[in-house]
Amino acid sequence: MRLMKFSASGREAYGIVEGDRVVEIVGDLFGSHERTKTVHALKDVKIEIPLIPPTFYCAGLNYTMHIKESAAKLGVEPDIPKKADIGYRAVSALVAHNEPVIIPRDATEKIHYEGELVAVIGRKVKHLSEADALSCVLGYTIGNDVSERTWQKNDRTMWRGKNTDTFKPMGPWIETSVDLDKLETMVRVNGKESTRFPTNDMLFSVATYIAAMTRYLTLYPGDVIWMGTDGSSPNIKAGDVVDVEITGIGTLTNPFVAET
Amino acid sequence: MRLMKFSASGREAYGIVEGDRVVEIVGDLFGSHERTKTVHALKDVKIEIPLIPPTFYCAGLNYTMHIKESAAKLGVEPDIPKKADIGYRAVSALVAHNEPVIIPRDATEKIHYEGELVAVIGRKVKHLSEADALSCVLGYTIGNDVSERTWQKNDRTMWRGKNTDTFKPMGPWIETSVDLDKLETMVRVNGKESTRFPTNDMLFSVATYIAAMTRYLTLYPGDVIWMGTDGSSPNIKAGDVVDVEITGIGTLTNPFVAET
Repeated sequence: MRLMKFSASGREAYGIVEGDRVVEIVGDLFGSHERTKTVHALKDVKIEIPLIPPTFYCAGLNYTMHIKESAAKLGVEPDIPKKADIGYRAVSALVAHNEPVIIPRDATEKIHYEGELVAVIGRKVKHLSEADALSCVLGYTIGNDVSERTWQKNDRTMWRGKNTDTFKPMGPWIETSVDLDKLETMVRVNGKESTRFPTNDMLFSVATYIAAMTRYLTLYPGDVIWMGTDGSSPNIKAGDVVDVEITGIGTLTNPFVAET
Repeated sequence: MRLMKFSASGREAYGIVEGDRVVEIVGDLFGSHERTKTVHALKDVKIEIPLIPPTFYCAGLNYTMHIKESAAKLGVEPDIPKKADIGYRAVSALVAHNEPVIIPRDATEKIHYEGELVAVIGRKVKHLSEADALSCVLGYTIGNDVSERTWQKNDRTMWRGKNTDTFKPMGPWIETSVDLDKLETMVRVNGKESTRFPTNDMLFSVATYIAAMTRYLTLYPGDVIWMGTDGSSPNIKAGDVVDVEITGIGTLTNPFVAET
C-alpha cells in the first residue's frame, strides 16, 4: 500500500495511491484509517512531504563503496564505522517530490546527491531486539541527502553542508509492502543513470540501527531514519533534474535551481 | 512576561506566570493571545516542556573556559570555533522541569550537566542581519545539555552521548523580557553552587548565530537555539538534583535517577 500526503482544492489529505489515482483516506495514518469515496487523478494533485518527522535520523556513512570513494576524493584513509551510531538532519530542510532544491549563491560547484532508503516509524517503541526491530516500521520512502561538500568538509558541523533550506527532498509516498533484499537504488541526472546499487547492501541494516537506537532512544510515530547511500555523485548544477528511484517504492524527482 | 505550558485537571494549557500563580491564556503563543479568568496556584500545576521545537538547534562549544577545560580533561589542544556553526539535538530527549534525568544502566560515571541559555524563536524568518536578529526571538528559557562524556568521546556521532532519552531538560517557562548582558548562570548540585558564569560571555552571541543561520536556514516559530555552556561539571550520580538558574529567567530543576 502506498500512503501519500497531497493537496488538492486548497486542502491537504492523505490517500492511497493505486495506479494513476489516489483514494482519500480518513483516520489515523499510524492507526485505523479508512477509504473514502473521494478519488483524485494522481496527475491533478500536488504531492506533499509524506510527513514532518518529530525526529529526523540519518545513518550517514553506511555503504562501503561510498565511504571509500568519499575518502579517496578527500585524500584521506576511509573511516568505516564500527557500529550503528545514528546521526541527525534538520526538519527545516525538507521539501517534497517535484519541489526545487535551491543552490545558494555562494555554494561551490560541489553540490552532490545521495539517494537513500528512508524507514518511517509507525509506533512508539523502546528496547526492541534486532529480531523485532522491523515491527515498528510503517513503511519506506525515499530521500535525497543533498550535500555541499566544501561546507561539509570545512564547517565544524554539517549545518549548511547538509541542512541548507531545500537540501532534503523526501517522498513521493510511503510504501508499506517492501522486501528489503529485493530493492535496488538508481539515481539519474537529467534522465541518465549515474548511480546504481543494491539498496540493502548496508554496513548496518535497518533492523540493526533500530535495535541499537532503541536501547537508549524512544522512537515515535513519524520519526524517519535515512539509511545512507552508496557510490558517489557528479557535481549537480542549476538546471539539472535528479531522480532517485528505489524499485518497489517509487521515484523521487527534484529540479535543482539557482538562488535568485 | 513568563509564558508557561502546564497541565492541570487532566488538560494542557499555556499561562502567564505572575508570582505564585498562573493566569491561563487562550490564542496563539506566537501571535495574539489573551488572559482568561482561570487562575491556578503555581504549586498546583505540573510544569510541561515549554514547547516541542520543530528544529532543535544547539551551539555546542561557545564559551572559552568550557572549551579549554574540556580539552585539558581529554589531553588535547583546545579547538576554539572560528565561526558560528550551529549544531543539533534531538526532540526525543526533552523533559520538563522537575522530571527525572534517567541514567542508563551501562553509562559510565562521566554524566555531566551543561547549563544553557535557550533562545525561543517567535516567527518565521530568513536573511536577518545581525542588527535585526533578536527581533525574531519570542523569549528565553533554560536548558540542561546532559552528556555522557565517554560516549560523546568514543561514538561517531553524539546520538547517545547527548540525546539519550531524558538528557535534555528544558524550562521552566519562556521569559520574554530579558537583558542579555545582565544575565548570570548558576548551576547547583544538591543545593551547592558548582558553576557560575556571565550568561552572555559567549564566543558568538545569540544575534551572531541567528544572522549566520538565517543566511541558509529558515527559522520557524518554536525553534529553539541552545547557546552552549561555560565551565565544567563534576560527575553527577543517581540521587543528585541539579538546578540551572539564570537570573531574570528562573530555575530549571531535575533529579537524576538510575535506570531500573
